[in-house]
Amino acid sequence: MINQRRPDGSLRHLITLDGLPRAELEDLLARAQHFVCEPGEQPRANQSLAGITIGNLFTEPSTRTRVSFELAGRRLGAEVVNLEVQLSSRAKGETMLDTIYTLQALHFDMFIIRDPQAGVVAHVAENVAPHVSVLSAGEAHVSHPTQGLLDALTIRQRKGDRFERLTIAVVGDIRHSRVARSAYEVFRGLGVGDLRLVAPAAMMPDAGEFAGTHRFATPEEGLRDVDVVMMLRIQKERMEQAAIPDGDDYFARFGLTPARLAFAKPDAIVMHPQPMNRGVEIDSAVADGPQSVIRDQVRNGVAMRMAVLETIARPRPLRS
Amino acid sequence: MINQRRPDGSLRHLITLDGLPRAELEDLLARAQHFVCEPGEQPRANQSLAGITIGNLFTEPSTRTRVSFELAGRRLGAEVVNLEVQLSSRAKGETMLDTIYTLQALHFDMFIIRDPQAGVVAHVAENVAPHVSVLSAGEAHVSHPTQGLLDALTIRQRKGDRFERLTIAVVGDIRHSRVARSAYEVFRGLGVGDLRLVAPAAMMPDAGEFAGTHRFATPEEGLRDVDVVMMLRIQKERMEQAAIPDGDDYFARFGLTPARLAFAKPDAIVMHPQPMNRGVEIDSAVADGPQSVIRDQVRNGVAMRMAVLETIARPRPLRS
Amino acid sequence: MINQRRPDGSLRHLITLDGLPRAELEDLLARAQHFVCEPGEQPRANQSLAGITIGNLFTEPSTRTRVSFELAGRRLGAEVVNLEVQLSSRAKGETMLDTIYTLQALHFDMFIIRDPQAGVVAHVAENVAPHVSVLSAGEAHVSHPTQGLLDALTIRQRKGDRFERLTIAVVGDIRHSRVARSAYEVFRGLGVGDLRLVAPAAMMPDAGEFAGTHRFATPEEGLRDVDVVMMLRIQKERMEQAAIPDGDDYFARFGLTPARLAFAKPDAIVMHPQPMNRGVEIDSAVADGPQSVIRDQVRNGVAMRMAVLETIARPRPLRS
Repeated sequence: MINQRRPDGSLRHLITLDGLPRAELEDLLARAQHFVCEPGEQPRANQSLAGITIGNLFTEPSTRTRVSFELAGRRLGAEVVNLEVQLSSRAKGETMLDTIYTLQALHFDMFIIRDPQAGVVAHVAENVAPHVSVLSAGEAHVSHPTQGLLDALTIRQRKGDRFERLTIAVVGDIRHSRVARSAYEVFRGLGVGDLRLVAPAAMMPDAGEFAGTHRFATPEEGLRDVDVVMMLRIQKERMEQAAIPDGDDYFARFGLTPARLAFAKPDAIVMHPQPMNRGVEIDSAVADGPQSVIRDQVRNGVAMRMAVLETIARPRPLRS
Repeated sequence: MINQRRPDGSLRHLITLDGLPRAELEDLLARAQHFVCEPGEQPRANQSLAGITIGNLFTEPSTRTRVSFELAGRRLGAEVVNLEVQLSSRAKGETMLDTIYTLQALHFDMFIIRDPQAGVVAHVAENVAPHVSVLSAGEAHVSHPTQGLLDALTIRQRKGDRFERLTIAVVGDIRHSRVARSAYEVFRGLGVGDLRLVAPAAMMPDAGEFAGTHRFATPEEGLRDVDVVMMLRIQKERMEQAAIPDGDDYFARFGLTPARLAFAKPDAIVMHPQPMNRGVEIDSAVADGPQSVIRDQVRNGVAMRMAVLETIARPRPLRS
Repeated sequence: MINQRRPDGSLRHLITLDGLPRAELEDLLARAQHFVCEPGEQPRANQSLAGITIGNLFTEPSTRTRVSFELAGRRLGAEVVNLEVQLSSRAKGETMLDTIYTLQALHFDMFIIRDPQAGVVAHVAENVAPHVSVLSAGEAHVSHPTQGLLDALTIRQRKGDRFERLTIAVVGDIRHSRVARSAYEVFRGLGVGDLRLVAPAAMMPDAGEFAGTHRFATPEEGLRDVDVVMMLRIQKERMEQAAIPDGDDYFARFGLTPARLAFAKPDAIVMHPQPMNRGVEIDSAVADGPQSVIRDQVRNGVAMRMAVLETIARPRPLRS
C-alpha cells in the first residue's frame, strides 16, 4: 500500500482513508466545518494556497466533483487548471508517466485525479517529485476519499461526533461502489458503533471485504432502528450487461420508500452521493423529504475539499 | 409568466425584456455605456461582484456569447465557472432539477443559461433558492434579452436616446429568431416610433405576435427611409429541411446589398447579430462598409452584460 | 513575409524566429532565465500583463503547450481564456476573419494560435487591429517559435552562451518538423558553429531548406563529437500512410541508444520536444538517463513564454 505521508509524518497525498487515525479524521472534519457556509452567504476564502498550482485530471466525466475541487482550490487562492489528458490509456503514444513528468515540469504542485482504472492514482503518487501531492477524486470501484469524508461531515452535523453510538446502514450496490468503500474506511476510523451492509446478493461485496460489518439481505431487516441510511447509486457501467437489474424490480425490493424508511429511527437521516436514479434506488418522496440531507452532502463537498487541500499543501519557498 | 423581481421590486432574474419599464431599460443602457471602451483601451473593471460565483450553462454551443458573459463577470470580480452539463435532456438518469439543486449547493449565486428548449430557463428560475439569479443567454426561438439590450445600446450610441423618432426595420428570418423577439420587446419598451418587419411569408411570425409593428414583403418597401436596418441570421437549424431557402435565391430577394441599403436614410446604420451568412443575408460590401455597426454590437456585448450582472447581483452577507 | 514589428521597431507578433537579430534573441533568453524556477519553488510572478486579455485558440490539440501559455499568462497577471473555435475551416458558415474580428471586439489583446494549416497564423496577424498581438503556438510543419526559443534556453543553461563553439545535431523526422525549422532559425540567429541534420532520406528536408547546415545519413556519422543531440518526434500525422516507417526498423537505424549517444561528446546533452515515441526515436535508457534534459525543456517552456509575452505586451492606456 502506498505511503501517503511525508518523512515528518504529515499527510502528503490522499489516495485512501484506510489507516487514518481518528484524531486526524476529526481534525479534518472540524476544519471543514469551519468552511461550511449557508446558501446565499459569501463563501469563506483565504490565501493559504497562494502560489500553488493545481491540475485537475478527470479521465471520467464528473462535473460535480471537478467543479467542487475547482471552487475549493480557488477559494484558497490556488491556481486551478483543468487538464484534458488521458492517463490510463496511451495518448499519442505517450506513456502515463511521461505525461505526469511533463505536467510536473510545468510546475504543478498538486494533481487531483479521477480515473476508472484501479491503481493509476497510486502509481502517479509513487512517481511524482517530492514536492508534488496527489489527491484521488475517485478511483475505479476502489476509493473516493473526499466523498467518504464529506459523508462523515454530513453525519457529524446532524448526529454529533460520538460516532460509536451510531448505527449506519449502507444500502444498494455496495459491490461496485467506491463511495461505500471510502465510507467504510472513514466510519471504521471514526469508530462507528454498528455498520450494516444491506444489498441483494449480486451487489454484496466479497466476504473478505468490509470486515466487522453486519450484512442484511433486505432493507426491512437492515434498516431497523438505524440513525443513518446511506443509499448508493447502481453502478451499471461497472456491471456485466446481464447483471444489471430491472429498475422496477429493484425499486420493489430495495428502493427507499417512506414505508421502508419507517423501519429506521424517526430522526434517521437519508444520504445519497448522487446522481440519483429516482424511482430505482430511491423514491422522490424520500429524496426530497424532511429526512434527506442529500443537498447538504453537496454543500459539504466544497468545504471538505478546502480542508483537505489546506491540510496537504505545504508553503512554497520563495525564489531567492 | 415568470416573476423576474424580488419582493422589493428589484430585478433578480433576466429571462425576458417583456414588461421592463422604459426608465429601467434606460438605466441599464446608461450603465452599460459607462463600461464601453475603445479597442486597445484597458477595459473598465471593478469588484462589485467579488464573492459571487457564476456558472455558465451553455447547452447550445456559443463561444461568442459565453466568452462575453465570462469576461463581463470576471471584470466585475466574480468567479466564473464553465459547466458542461445538460439541462433539457437527462444525463446519467439525472433530472434537470437535481442538476440545478446540486450546482446550487456548490454555492453558485447566478446561472447563465443557454438552452434550445423553450421554457427551460424559466423553469430553472422558478426552482432555485431565493438568493440565486438566473440569466437567459438565449432560449430557443423565444428570447435573448442581453442581445436585445446590446442592440438598443448600439442604436443609442449612433442615433441618440429619442427612440420615438426612429424607424427601425428588422429584416429576414423573424419567425425563428429569438434576437428579433427580444429586439421587439426592448424597442417597444423604449418607445420606438416605427418598427417594421420585413420578411418573406415563410419567415414572417404569426399574426398574433409583434403587435403594433408594420409588415412588409420586400426590402424595397420595408427599408424606405429607415434609420436602422437590423439583419437577422437564417436559423436553418430551426426550420424544416424543405423550408430552408436556397442561398442564392434568398440573396437575390432579401440580401442586403448597397443598392437595397440605398432605400434607407443616407445615415442609416446596419446591424447583424452574427454569425453572418455573407452572400445570403448580407453583401460583404455592406457588412464591412461605413454604415455597418456590426463590430460595435460585439464590443457592446461585454459592456451590456456587465451592466446586467451588476444590476442583478446583490451583495452577499459575510459569514459571521 | 509578415512584418512582426510595430512602427517603433518593437516586436508586436511572434510568428517566426526568422530574421530576429542575435541581441534580441539573447535578451529574450536572459529574461526567460529570470523566470526559471526549480521544482517545488514558488513560481515567479508579476503583474506586467494586468489588464491584458489573452485568447488561446488551439485548433490542434496540445495540452502541454496550451497549459504552458495559460500558466505563463496568468503568472504575469493577464486574463487568459481558452476559446474553442475553428479557424481554418468555416464554422456555422462564418469566415475565419469574421471570427477574429468578433473576438477582437470582445477586447482580446493577444491571440495565441496553433493551427494545422500553413499561413493561417500570419493571415490573422495581418488582419487584427493595431493594438492586438498574435503569437504562434505551432503552425503546420512550418514554425513553432517559442519551442525554438526554449530549446535554445535549455542549451544555454548547460553549455553557456558562446553558441559559435557548439556543434548541434538535429536527428530524425526533420522534413515534417516545425520544431526543427524553428530550431534552425534560432540556432542560426545565435550563431551556432556547426549545425547538422541527421535523417533518413525520406525525412530529410528539400535541398533548398536549412541553408548552411551539414547533412548526414546515419547517426553514427552525424553524432560524432556533437555537444547537443536534438531528437525529433516522427510526425506520422503529416506523412503519407505508406511512408510511415516501421517502429522497430526505425529504432534499429536511427533510435538514440546509449551506444549511439557514445559517438557524441561525453558531456553532450539530449533533447526531445515530446511527446516521445519511446523505443522508436529514443531508448528509455537515454530519455531517462543523466544526459537527458528533456524535462528541463518543459520547465523552461513556461519561463520562455513569460519572457515572450512580457516582451510583446504593451501597457494599455487607462480609460479616461
